[in-house]
Amino acid sequence: MPNELTRVSLKITQPRIDAYAQITGDPNPIHLDAAFAAGTEMQGIIAHGTLSLNLLWRALARTFGPDACEGAEMDVRFIRPVRVDDVVTASGHRDDAEPDRYLVQVTNQSGEAVITGWARPGN
Amino acid sequence: MPNELTRVSLKITQPRIDAYAQITGDPNPIHLDAAFAAGTEMQGIIAHGTLSLNLLWRALARTFGPDACEGAEMDVRFIRPVRVDDVVTASGHRDDAEPDRYLVQVTNQSGEAVITGWARPGN
Repeated sequence: MPNELTRVSLKITQPRIDAYAQITGDPNPIHLDAAFAAGTEMQGIIAHGTLSLNLLWRALARTFGPDACEGAEMDVRFIRPVRVDDVVTASGHRDDAEPDRYLVQVTNQSGEAVITGWARPGN
Repeated sequence: MPNELTRVSLKITQPRIDAYAQITGDPNPIHLDAAFAAGTEMQGIIAHGTLSLNLLWRALARTFGPDACEGAEMDVRFIRPVRVDDVVTASGHRDDAEPDRYLVQVTNQSGEAVITGWARPGN
């Protein structure tokens, strides 16, 4: 197993969020309606957490091949919202204490973690 | 906290998978190319695991409101592939042993679990 996961990045634009909402059947206005979202505790539109989490899925698949996702395990915490036009990047390095898994994070363009946790490839 | 999460279902069609691949920037042919996918260990197209996982995200948001996803934690395992035209449903019930979290699963139309684990709402 390599020491580092292949890094994967994505720019989170409003059209991407809109399309994601449509595909996943999620009409929550916190993702779609700027005026509504501005009045919430989030103070503006946030992206779906699983849109950013998908980057970890892809990082596993790029590092180990698509079969690695079968039986994969992820323990992740969504610690900071992702905003429109953020560029998020998934990365991970082997956990010295448990070498069959990776300590993973998704960070924004300011280097702030938006998701942290660990992932273990399947198969 | 309610004993059960609000259930959320989605039919996983090929157009949905295609659109998801485009939005997330994931060109992996295991999700897109039936001929290629048939020749792999998966023996056919599989959906992105995070597309199904999104249902758990929505189940938390529907049960507790969108703010519940901020700081939420998920520990999930992808145990079975999701195929084209599967209908997947996320559900969860409170963990008696740890009542601040839910034992969660995503099942297919045959009642087989495709994702299992636990989730703890944030905020």
